[in-house]
Amino acid sequence: MGGMPRRATAKGREENEVEFARIVAFSDGVFAIAITLLVLDLHIKSGLESDKEVWNAIGDQWENLLAFGISFAVIGRFWIVHHRFFGQVTAFDGRLLWINLLYLCSIVLIPFSSKVLGEYGSDTAGVVVYAINLSATVLIGLWMAADAQGAGLTRTGPEEWRAGWITSLYIAAVFLLSIPVAFIAPNLGQLMWLVLFLNPSRWLAPRAASPD
Amino acid sequence: MGGMPRRATAKGREENEVEFARIVAFSDGVFAIAITLLVLDLHIKSGLESDKEVWNAIGDQWENLLAFGISFAVIGRFWIVHHRFFGQVTAFDGRLLWINLLYLCSIVLIPFSSKVLGEYGSDTAGVVVYAINLSATVLIGLWMAADAQGAGLTRTGPEEWRAGWITSLYIAAVFLLSIPVAFIAPNLGQLMWLVLFLNPSRWLAPRAASPD
Amino acid sequence: MGGMPRRATAKGREENEVEFARIVAFSDGVFAIAITLLVLDLHIKSGLESDKEVWNAIGDQWENLLAFGISFAVIGRFWIVHHRFFGQVTAFDGRLLWINLLYLCSIVLIPFSSKVLGEYGSDTAGVVVYAINLSATVLIGLWMAADAQGAGLTRTGPEEWRAGWITSLYIAAVFLLSIPVAFIAPNLGQLMWLVLFLNPSRWLAPRAASPD
Amino acid sequence: MGGMPRRATAKGREENEVEFARIVAFSDGVFAIAITLLVLDLHIKSGLESDKEVWNAIGDQWENLLAFGISFAVIGRFWIVHHRFFGQVTAFDGRLLWINLLYLCSIVLIPFSSKVLGEYGSDTAGVVVYAINLSATVLIGLWMAADAQGAGLTRTGPEEWRAGWITSLYIAAVFLLSIPVAFIAPNLGQLMWLVLFLNPSRWLAPRAASPD
Repeated sequence: MGGMPRRATAKGREENEVEFARIVAFSDGVFAIAITLLVLDLHIKSGLESDKEVWNAIGDQWENLLAFGISFAVIGRFWIVHHRFFGQVTAFDGRLLWINLLYLCSIVLIPFSSKVLGEYGSDTAGVVVYAINLSATVLIGLWMAADAQGAGLTRTGPEEWRAGWITSLYIAAVFLLSIPVAFIAPNLGQLMWLVLFLNPSRWLAPRAASPD
Repeated sequence: MGGMPRRATAKGREENEVEFARIVAFSDGVFAIAITLLVLDLHIKSGLESDKEVWNAIGDQWENLLAFGISFAVIGRFWIVHHRFFGQVTAFDGRLLWINLLYLCSIVLIPFSSKVLGEYGSDTAGVVVYAINLSATVLIGLWMAADAQGAGLTRTGPEEWRAGWITSLYIAAVFLLSIPVAFIAPNLGQLMWLVLFLNPSRWLAPRAASPD
Repeated sequence: MGGMPRRATAKGREENEVEFARIVAFSDGVFAIAITLLVLDLHIKSGLESDKEVWNAIGDQWENLLAFGISFAVIGRFWIVHHRFFGQVTAFDGRLLWINLLYLCSIVLIPFSSKVLGEYGSDTAGVVVYAINLSATVLIGLWMAADAQGAGLTRTGPEEWRAGWITSLYIAAVFLLSIPVAFIAPNLGQLMWLVLFLNPSRWLAPRAASPD
Repeated sequence: MGGMPRRATAKGREENEVEFARIVAFSDGVFAIAITLLVLDLHIKSGLESDKEVWNAIGDQWENLLAFGISFAVIGRFWIVHHRFFGQVTAFDGRLLWINLLYLCSIVLIPFSSKVLGEYGSDTAGVVVYAINLSATVLIGLWMAADAQGAGLTRTGPEEWRAGWITSLYIAAVFLLSIPVAFIAPNLGQLMWLVLFLNPSRWLAPRAASPD
């Protein structure tokens, strides 16, 4: 674990501090912009006459506001995970850069999926688009972590890594399962996401950890 | 004060410089984008025929321009406070990260509230939405500071901390009080905000400081 | 010049490296976003039928493209000047922070003024709005530099400082003079800006420098 | 190569770490914003009635989604190249700053060209605009590298440099050649871009390297 990266082209983080810092800064920039662009999904018509009309127009935004809140928490959560993952990275190479770009691509799509969810959250389409986007992000993140782990680019220990992939698979599974459910009842698909507040690594990891 | 953080999961700032720098960089990014997005609330129709029409269209923007100016100063002010607060932070943990995200969420909503204020500043709705957004931001910021203070994550002394929360409560109170006022007279609600130029910590803190 | 800042509340740059870095990073963020938002002024209608219509629609963008190019160069130029100025700053205080925010506020308005120029560059209004925005930016920048110079917050020598304010005043004067001209002939007002390619500090500063 | 820069006004990277870091941070910011703005080209109409209409509206976005994917990969690729290039830079001057700004200007235009491609990818206009934008970016990047190489501002060795410009010229040539092809058959012009997956420096550089 750690020590020597197993991929020959990998560059150590210490010796390439500026280059490494740029990867992280670029990723942070993309996260910060994506999370801030969410506000553009909130609208207010101009030219409304009475105070009552303005209140109605604001009231009509409640679904968009809910989608804004969910997506802000989601991107914020992804940022924290990304933040922790790169805190463990000790070396990088072109492959890590590319998977990271693919991951960011999926993050950047969230404001769009969020808009679809905000407009059509009670339709199958809105729930499905959002669930695909989020499960894809989680799975690409898992792939990035697994690849870095396999190439010896991180100092994550086996326990921590186990807890990490269990959590990732759990989240991806909830979103993927919500897709067929949304074809039967969109609202039920959305309600399923609340299961995410249960963290499986808490009751799975310790038990599994003992024989390790 | 300072020394050992009282929350066991806290990480020292010195030993986790890169991770700490990312939190600050991400926050700065969000602030910078939110403050710049304000310009998107200024519009100019295309296809106007005469020079007079163009001047009228620009003149119609004066309320939006006023809202832009106010919000720019407001977000700028919040950034300076955030800047100072994190200058005092000596350790961080997941809890601080999450409250900071909630704080940034409130910041990101300001361009939307500002748009509502720009369009409907003389209606109750415009004033109320803006006042709720700003008082929420101040109170979340106060919560973040109080939590960090309680967990021993900052090196802020009792004097400075006292002045800080007095100012925060004062600002939140002015905005919260302007809400019922706006239901009677929206313009009066907005005028109340001018009281904010008086800084209570100047005449409260020194007096209170003596017996401390 | 250098040594001890003359304003008591000033903080040295060396001892507050992280705080200083944040000011610069925040400013860079605002510059980067403002310069990138310029692209949002370029439009393409959807639903055009023939290839010829598409070419026409792109051709109609040439004024917007010109405004984009000018504003990109302008913001880029302001960024380089800001970059150099802060490279000379040795200490900072709240006052510098606030003037810097005011400066950034003026920078953030450039995409809006640029849109007005792109749409109505052959009208008086378009030229006047742009000229006001740019001269304001230059003058606020000059104020920031003069204030920092007076408070001993920079290590700029008298020669360099002299060349700096001569250039600033020259640029501001050209833009301010183009305003009355634009009321007579908008195109002439715009043409006047070409005078900016002459740099007066080159032929004024050396002559003036000898008796210094 | 390395050692002493041949341009007298050049500043060493080591001695001007903060200034150098700002150039890189500003560039990263522009890249991060440009790549994230791509998501704004994806639309969803509001007020659609049936689930089927929503699916159709999402389906209508497939060309935009394709353009999004291509442009994300393209800007990501340019970022990696820029990243590597600046990793080699040992000194900088005003000229490098200006060429870098011109390069970023071309990067910032990609979201616009991408929108044109997404809307009119099967028309000549869409393909030509995109090909011009991308070949211009590559050629400005090559100019920046050649200029820096000539002025001794980088530590790139002759082998690496040779591989770099061969690749750049190859990419620019493919895009430039696709322009006349697009006037005959737009789809064929786009298909030509697939040739870019072949990397000529792999089979050209080693052969050419031997006599060096």
